[in-house]
Amino acid sequence: MGMVGGGPGAFIGETHRRAARLDGIELVAGVFSTDPEKNREQGRALRLSLDRVYRDYQELIQREQGLAEGDRIDFVTIATPNHLHLPMARDFLEAGFHVVCDKPLALNLTEGLELRRVVQTTGKVFVLTHNYVGYPMVKLARDLVRLGKLGKLRKVVVEYQQGWLATEAAKSKQAEWRSDPRRNGVAGAMADIGTHAFHLAEYVAGIQVEHVCAELNAFGEGRMLDDDGSVLLRFAGGARGLLHASQISIGQENRLCLQVYGERCSLEWRQEDPNYLRVMEGARPAAIWSRGQAYVADISPAAARASQLPGGHVEGFTEAFANIYRNGADTIRAALTGEPPDDLALDFPTVEDGVRGLAFLEAVVENARGQNKWTRIPQIL
Amino acid sequence: MGMVGGGPGAFIGETHRRAARLDGIELVAGVFSTDPEKNREQGRALRLSLDRVYRDYQELIQREQGLAEGDRIDFVTIATPNHLHLPMARDFLEAGFHVVCDKPLALNLTEGLELRRVVQTTGKVFVLTHNYVGYPMVKLARDLVRLGKLGKLRKVVVEYQQGWLATEAAKSKQAEWRSDPRRNGVAGAMADIGTHAFHLAEYVAGIQVEHVCAELNAFGEGRMLDDDGSVLLRFAGGARGLLHASQISIGQENRLCLQVYGERCSLEWRQEDPNYLRVMEGARPAAIWSRGQAYVADISPAAARASQLPGGHVEGFTEAFANIYRNGADTIRAALTGEPPDDLALDFPTVEDGVRGLAFLEAVVENARGQNKWTRIPQIL
Amino acid sequence: MGMVGGGPGAFIGETHRRAARLDGIELVAGVFSTDPEKNREQGRALRLSLDRVYRDYQELIQREQGLAEGDRIDFVTIATPNHLHLPMARDFLEAGFHVVCDKPLALNLTEGLELRRVVQTTGKVFVLTHNYVGYPMVKLARDLVRLGKLGKLRKVVVEYQQGWLATEAAKSKQAEWRSDPRRNGVAGAMADIGTHAFHLAEYVAGIQVEHVCAELNAFGEGRMLDDDGSVLLRFAGGARGLLHASQISIGQENRLCLQVYGERCSLEWRQEDPNYLRVMEGARPAAIWSRGQAYVADISPAAARASQLPGGHVEGFTEAFANIYRNGADTIRAALTGEPPDDLALDFPTVEDGVRGLAFLEAVVENARGQNKWTRIPQIL
Amino acid sequence: MGMVGGGPGAFIGETHRRAARLDGIELVAGVFSTDPEKNREQGRALRLSLDRVYRDYQELIQREQGLAEGDRIDFVTIATPNHLHLPMARDFLEAGFHVVCDKPLALNLTEGLELRRVVQTTGKVFVLTHNYVGYPMVKLARDLVRLGKLGKLRKVVVEYQQGWLATEAAKSKQAEWRSDPRRNGVAGAMADIGTHAFHLAEYVAGIQVEHVCAELNAFGEGRMLDDDGSVLLRFAGGARGLLHASQISIGQENRLCLQVYGERCSLEWRQEDPNYLRVMEGARPAAIWSRGQAYVADISPAAARASQLPGGHVEGFTEAFANIYRNGADTIRAALTGEPPDDLALDFPTVEDGVRGLAFLEAVVENARGQNKWTRIPQIL
Repeated sequence: MGMVGGGPGAFIGETHRRAARLDGIELVAGVFSTDPEKNREQGRALRLSLDRVYRDYQELIQREQGLAEGDRIDFVTIATPNHLHLPMARDFLEAGFHVVCDKPLALNLTEGLELRRVVQTTGKVFVLTHNYVGYPMVKLARDLVRLGKLGKLRKVVVEYQQGWLATEAAKSKQAEWRSDPRRNGVAGAMADIGTHAFHLAEYVAGIQVEHVCAELNAFGEGRMLDDDGSVLLRFAGGARGLLHASQISIGQENRLCLQVYGERCSLEWRQEDPNYLRVMEGARPAAIWSRGQAYVADISPAAARASQLPGGHVEGFTEAFANIYRNGADTIRAALTGEPPDDLALDFPTVEDGVRGLAFLEAVVENARGQNKWTRIPQIL
Repeated sequence: MGMVGGGPGAFIGETHRRAARLDGIELVAGVFSTDPEKNREQGRALRLSLDRVYRDYQELIQREQGLAEGDRIDFVTIATPNHLHLPMARDFLEAGFHVVCDKPLALNLTEGLELRRVVQTTGKVFVLTHNYVGYPMVKLARDLVRLGKLGKLRKVVVEYQQGWLATEAAKSKQAEWRSDPRRNGVAGAMADIGTHAFHLAEYVAGIQVEHVCAELNAFGEGRMLDDDGSVLLRFAGGARGLLHASQISIGQENRLCLQVYGERCSLEWRQEDPNYLRVMEGARPAAIWSRGQAYVADISPAAARASQLPGGHVEGFTEAFANIYRNGADTIRAALTGEPPDDLALDFPTVEDGVRGLAFLEAVVENARGQNKWTRIPQIL
Repeated sequence: MGMVGGGPGAFIGETHRRAARLDGIELVAGVFSTDPEKNREQGRALRLSLDRVYRDYQELIQREQGLAEGDRIDFVTIATPNHLHLPMARDFLEAGFHVVCDKPLALNLTEGLELRRVVQTTGKVFVLTHNYVGYPMVKLARDLVRLGKLGKLRKVVVEYQQGWLATEAAKSKQAEWRSDPRRNGVAGAMADIGTHAFHLAEYVAGIQVEHVCAELNAFGEGRMLDDDGSVLLRFAGGARGLLHASQISIGQENRLCLQVYGERCSLEWRQEDPNYLRVMEGARPAAIWSRGQAYVADISPAAARASQLPGGHVEGFTEAFANIYRNGADTIRAALTGEPPDDLALDFPTVEDGVRGLAFLEAVVENARGQNKWTRIPQIL
Repeated sequence: MGMVGGGPGAFIGETHRRAARLDGIELVAGVFSTDPEKNREQGRALRLSLDRVYRDYQELIQREQGLAEGDRIDFVTIATPNHLHLPMARDFLEAGFHVVCDKPLALNLTEGLELRRVVQTTGKVFVLTHNYVGYPMVKLARDLVRLGKLGKLRKVVVEYQQGWLATEAAKSKQAEWRSDPRRNGVAGAMADIGTHAFHLAEYVAGIQVEHVCAELNAFGEGRMLDDDGSVLLRFAGGARGLLHASQISIGQENRLCLQVYGERCSLEWRQEDPNYLRVMEGARPAAIWSRGQAYVADISPAAARASQLPGGHVEGFTEAFANIYRNGADTIRAALTGEPPDDLALDFPTVEDGVRGLAFLEAVVENARGQNKWTRIPQIL
């Protein structure tokens, strides 16, 4: 694999590399920084051959294309600020590379649709790292819903709270570009973490949000994008829901929680304690399903596949991220060999999920600015 | 004390009696059921003198008025369906009795304002059992906010989820009247438990909600009132919030949780684990304050007063309810003796809180029915 | 009821009164302090008729005996330091009163056996307040074991940790007498809380400890009795176990926890979160049983009887204590009327449990002092 | 690196590989199974060059020695049943390779001392994978003790409970060799997990256990080694403790918990929720320290170094294991280059820790068999 972005100190770039590594994928080429010195420094730290640490991503494309199949990278990971996702991904796809791209997909829905067109045209694999659906217990939750254990869904509550924009960290470089509309897109916290929550909710519930009613807030002094927001949700088929995301919830670290209530049964999952899924029926004791147990595998082959260690041996963020890579890489491998990919491997977020997230974001931003109570999320066919 | 309501099997009536008893208040008279046999049966079960088990509340008023001061009841508890709160409370107050009344205050805001007028005119003590603010750690939370430990508030999230209207219990007698607009008022779950959540949020935050944007749902087949609802909140001064209440959250028992986020610090409290308060600053470890400890008393005399047992000796629902009774009874005692009540004793929900809850309810119901995004909660002066 | 002990500020005396009150039992007479002024002060605070606040317990016996049946107290509660349990209880029993007595039963096994003889001779009801078995979920645990759900038991782990003897509280009056062998008996923390843990373990497991191997420690400077201790347990029938109790576990409040492992299933209960029981089989998700639910009542009528509020409405220490009173009082009532007591009411700790606790204590103390690895708990027939 | 052991389906071998990979260490040679077919299969699955998948470990040594420095493996990981640790490690060390070895060190203390002699003689780096001390919060705990925050230690409670030997898994291949004295050594569960608990306790407490009083049990039918055991501990300097380990605690997955009580403050850590450390003083709220926060780094550079992700982004078992590899590999790298290793890198379990674990085991086994109350752990100088 190759990488664009992820220079010294960048959290998400290093996360991509660790995830790939855990799955046995080798990083062999990259552009890590626009600063030539930092770029080489990172390359050396990663023990890369320096002739594959390129000046810019165009050079990377050109030079890797020149290598023999088997020598050149099979795919590239794009871990840059959001405004670069579209131009880079487009060029890589058109040059024949598969792409793993950080979320959100692009600055806005128009860009997202353009990127989708390129993916469709080129036929390349496109993986979007909405990493939280890589958790085994999230896959179990989805499968319990799919199998009808919950009955018809009634209510979905999802929250994603962080506090770092309320602390000193708000002065960091990351905080800077994430608050800049030109580089982060139409929304702030709602784009950065709200789209994760949205994607998680739809992934597990298996039904789509149709309408939103939203409020976005910017509490930080002089902040141009939202650092907090709440959204009422109306799902197709009558279920209702609630999504709130905040980066000013001081003291919260990465509190992503999902509750799904059906007619017969309900589920609760917390990202900060991800190895367990609480399943509740009214008439029986609540059940704490634990990752790695045989009864999980019996219900959910996807959860079993995503689980690497026995129960009680905590898996976390890196394994979940690696599961996205693993399914993506297996699918890319199938594409390279021409074999049909494994059904379970096809379970990763794609450009479609990215477009849907942007459609959600645009509806939220529009609703939050206007006087209408409900805004319909654009339907993408 | 006397009691109206609370016949055999009624949960809330028995709760009132246990709370009063724990505080050493004696029940001596009552009307427990419109069914004469059940009425006497309950009187016997409570070891009351049967000549003080009355046919109806009018008889109770008349006969108790005839007794000498010191012999007759000092106050009456009204634990009936909501539509009876106004007529009964009015008659008791006008007959010179102090009143403890279950929530919500009345069927609607008009009734509530009428009742407030009677309270003001008669000058009697009126206690509304929004019992959840009786918890010591809720009082500590309020005092931490008051003392400025959180800084300016930014966000308040309150939820109250139960599941009993999604189960067999939905066929109970209580479920029946709670779903009947004539007896329960303008709303269902939002009135029954949403007003508790609203009251708790304003009590702790010390700021008022000005605008609401709401959705109410009735998932139960044929149900005429909401069994679920979500509300976006705008507080005076710029804080934002979220309130959701549901009685179809299958598997949830009595999940009332409050989160308050300020500029400097935040709080989290869960009614199902009520002896602890989580206090979070970004730059230090989260602190788990435990009821009954000296460091709580140092900050919050109200929490210390409300705490009966050492830390680790779990207190619960009954003690919190009893704390409402205790403060109410101390205030009634002061009124009877003409002495000024203790400042800390004045800490109980009053008719003002009840009116405010009804104003909130009306705004929520109006907003949920209409197309406007925001509805202002009527200001009551 | 009458009471001896429980003067101003005494925690356990007030606990007894609250428990009794919650169950509707009226306190009408007492001796609260050897200091006449404090004695009267407490009587006034409890709104007792001052002619029934007696100088000493002998006067209480003599004067109450002189009252008509129905007027005089039915039973007395003894809440004094341990060295007074035997002489007082003996005199009350022999004077024809039923007795509720705080634990441990007496200073040592010899005293305990003497007290047992008196109980047997007089035929009076004797209730020992090992209050922790009053919790509904403890009764459910016992019933699950009894019903064979766990299979043959293999291991029982019980711990009871507090920290107050490691803090300033160690200078309190209570700390003083609890550390004095003449007033507290052969052991310190092991007597005060270790016997609770021992009683809880045998109550739930339904099998008896036969041998102990113990270490007792006194960490507090100059402390004459243990403030910490650990005991290996061998149960009849081959189960093994572990009990540890400490009052120097700084930061722990009242951490009493029980784990029971059987061949098929296991249980876990925590006193600081007492409304839940965790039930674990290897091959299924762990189940969180919640007090107040129908599925609990289906298995355990004793748990259902002991539960007063719906699930999610936290019950705690006071309710558990009150359940001891309730069963004791129902049994006393049956004795007074000559009717056979309800089977479920007979579920309270008796003089037998007290004797057993003292036998355990003596074995522990002997073992801790000596060089033998195992000491047999004296068998009492 | 090279590896011996870790064939298809072996949990611990795969764990070693994942840990190494996460830290960017490349596996290039190995012997994975005595079955030639399985050996090659595993080599292929790991994408190794098949000419470096050797028949047996002797061949591995011989052939790798023949390669140029830089080409040949720098160290080998031994992940075989315990009886092979000594012969293999000896040969590797004497052939000039550094060694990473699974725990326990060897079958018994005599073997352990022999291995220690070889390590000392050869001067090679020897890493023992007591992986649980790789957790950042364990390092923080150790540093808080070292810095004197707890005051003089009084009590250490450590438990390690699993349930897999009480379930169907007891019939697995791993269960078989772990219950065989010839392959597992003098003890069963006490060797497999008890030594982890022992190592963790001494690592954090920073003081050594001097005497033990133990009971070992074998509940499984026909089981020749203990599957459960409890040990009273006496530490040098007067602290006391308790260690229990079990593999028949049905329903427990990997419950390793540590409590350390000092004169001023206490700690609690749970391996199944490893990103938090609870720190308790009596006079302040309990503090929940969270991995990844600046206040952790301020106190403990070792915890900061061991932490890879921001707080709230769960790290788990694999990261902790990888931290052992990382420190070991950094030290090996320093040995290879002749530079002095980083002080923080020297923080990994060594042959000394292994010898100490075996000394503990022998004392426990001897004590459990005999009639003496206390057995001294052999002092190794």
